Amino acid sequence: MIEYFEEIEVGQQAMLGGRRFTAEDIKAYASRFDPQPFHVDEEAGRNSLFGGLCASGWQTIMMCAKLTAERHRRQSEARRAAGGAVAALGPVSAIRELKWLKPVFPGDVITYAARVTEKREAAADGFGIVVTRNTGVNQGGEVVISFLAELLVERRPD
Amino acid sequence: MIEYFEEIEVGQQAMLGGRRFTAEDIKAYASRFDPQPFHVDEEAGRNSLFGGLCASGWQTIMMCAKLTAERHRRQSEARRAAGGAVAALGPVSAIRELKWLKPVFPGDVITYAARVTEKREAAADGFGIVVTRNTGVNQGGEVVISFLAELLVERRPD
Repeated sequence: MIEYFEEIEVGQQAMLGGRRFTAEDIKAYASRFDPQPFHVDEEAGRNSLFGGLCASGWQTIMMCAKLTAERHRRQSEARRAAGGAVAALGPVSAIRELKWLKPVFPGDVITYAARVTEKREAAADGFGIVVTRNTGVNQGGEVVISFLAELLVERRPD
Repeated sequence: MIEYFEEIEVGQQAMLGGRRFTAEDIKAYASRFDPQPFHVDEEAGRNSLFGGLCASGWQTIMMCAKLTAERHRRQSEARRAAGGAVAALGPVSAIRELKWLKPVFPGDVITYAARVTEKREAAADGFGIVVTRNTGVNQGGEVVISFLAELLVERRPD
């Protein structure tokens, strides 16, 4: 969100980009942050509920957070270069209804998108809350992750 | 959860441990996974809503996931060493009501705990769903993060 709260419209959608998950990435991330057997070892994956090595759900959501932050930075730079003002960065204050619906296996390409579903008042002075529905979809069109994020977005100065 | 679904009781609580967040850790994590200015730069932090450099909310939750996985591994090893069976690892299938309530600043020590709040049937054969309320509290006793996690936990074999 580089726009001020007043400029954001419910229904607007952003394509955040896609990323391929390799076996190496999956094991490296999980070894460091979520060391469960089915995320770090092929055989443990085959013997698990998932039927194969698969990505930590946290890696799947972190990729969405990273793509969101990168998009924000690119757009802020472009808006500033064009002489426009950029709203204060909105930290995520809450996540609701986060579901990992399908495993992410090595070689899967996950494409992320976000859509504004709601705007409302915030307790923080000078900010509003924007709610987005974020999804990640694999190369087969299956939704692998879905969640609502609540962001604080600066109001336009008077 | 190393116990089978049938052994887990609503109300049971686990202390997951605590970790100090340093400025170096905060900047290193955010640079890689959540590159927003107030997570990677002191001055940007001071000029932000937070009033100072603070940790990515994702780092705060990942620390909880990591401490949970490490506790699980230690307990599984102890239970196996004592000749006991260990239930299949329960992947987290959903997160609800995740809130970041206070910023985490450099030097803060966050202590994590989990309490079982609900048990219910799962669609996956041979598994049940256990819901835990997870919290992280800083050295001043303030809750900085709170969320509900839904875990798939193996049922005791017949």
